[in-house]
Amino acid sequence: MTSLDSATNPAHDAPDVSQLVVGVLGGTGDQGRGLALRLAKAGQQVIIGSRDAARAEASAAELGLGVRGADNATVARESDVVIVAVPWDGHAATLTALRAELAGKIVVDCVNPLGFDKQGAYALKPEEGSAAQQAAALLPDSRVTAAFHHLSAVLLQDESVERIDTDVMVLGDDRAATDVVRALADLIPGMRGIFAGRLRNAHQVEALVANLISVNRRYKAHAGLRVTDV
Amino acid sequence: MTSLDSATNPAHDAPDVSQLVVGVLGGTGDQGRGLALRLAKAGQQVIIGSRDAARAEASAAELGLGVRGADNATVARESDVVIVAVPWDGHAATLTALRAELAGKIVVDCVNPLGFDKQGAYALKPEEGSAAQQAAALLPDSRVTAAFHHLSAVLLQDESVERIDTDVMVLGDDRAATDVVRALADLIPGMRGIFAGRLRNAHQVEALVANLISVNRRYKAHAGLRVTDV
Repeated sequence: MTSLDSATNPAHDAPDVSQLVVGVLGGTGDQGRGLALRLAKAGQQVIIGSRDAARAEASAAELGLGVRGADNATVARESDVVIVAVPWDGHAATLTALRAELAGKIVVDCVNPLGFDKQGAYALKPEEGSAAQQAAALLPDSRVTAAFHHLSAVLLQDESVERIDTDVMVLGDDRAATDVVRALADLIPGMRGIFAGRLRNAHQVEALVANLISVNRRYKAHAGLRVTDV
Repeated sequence: MTSLDSATNPAHDAPDVSQLVVGVLGGTGDQGRGLALRLAKAGQQVIIGSRDAARAEASAAELGLGVRGADNATVARESDVVIVAVPWDGHAATLTALRAELAGKIVVDCVNPLGFDKQGAYALKPEEGSAAQQAAALLPDSRVTAAFHHLSAVLLQDESVERIDTDVMVLGDDRAATDVVRALADLIPGMRGIFAGRLRNAHQVEALVANLISVNRRYKAHAGLRVTDV
């Protein structure tokens, strides 16, 4: 088995993603802002989106690193790869409104449909099977993938943390699209983008965040997942 | 973050499990036999079960290490902790028949309900929510937990592999029972038993095996999962 320390990704046909513009819908939320920060630190061109352009611009200015802010529609239009980091309850409405702007784009869904009660978090099961499958159903002209579910928003946003030891499970039915997303994940120190199946197997990857929340609570951790033997 | 190499488990009230007898239902299958081998190598008393006592005895003799074989009912009766490693399609019937023998026992469900077609594996959703919840429904007098889902049967059975780098997610609503199961997982070199939530969050842990199968296919690996920052 390979060492887990090196966090090297097995050779794959890594596409050159250096010129791609990455947009983040919901980029003013914790997860979205954290991903935007990490990708921008890695040298990627990043635009964060919000329903409110002024709020996105303010968040972008705080992040620095050349990050721009705009309303969600502009972000979708101007990006090559669009990360969907909106709350689950706004997921369907946001994507439905952006169907035209997202046509032809690589869409990366990282939404985790969860419910919470006094016993903690539990998985919700979207009618389409998963948030990612809902995105695919709503965006028939986009190249929908799923990734970046298991990252701690706390660690992502903590600039004193230089390296985040976790793998990024990347799912999708379009090989070239998942290769791009894997290459983007590879840019973040400590992370590897690992292909982990088709969209029909996205539900359990999304839902596993409920388990990581239990781990975090028990161990006072910011848990992630490393895929071993890869 | 802690080093992943050390595979040390954070301090917990680890119960002494050295005197517990571990039974494995479905102990002649790949997963069950592999688990029996690893636990026996770690010094645990192990009995493997099968519907056919003679078959279980033959498998036990092959394993050596003091492992005994018996019919499933005898195994359930004589064990303190009973690992359920039967195929999903025999799960409900096997447990229903053993309800009396399993009363009061710690039951560890490691069954992954999966379907297969030409695109690979996909998750099945049991009516009760998960295999583990089905077990809990069928065994109201047992202490049902879920664990050992993500282990490669190939690695478990390969005696040239001394250490298997993977964590064991342990789920359950009975804290003392999950502590016992975690302590058993800790016995196997390279593994740690990590509490990962209540039984209501077992489905995604079971279903994630479909994703690991995709990983294995793409990377020609025997993938496992390490929980980082714990």
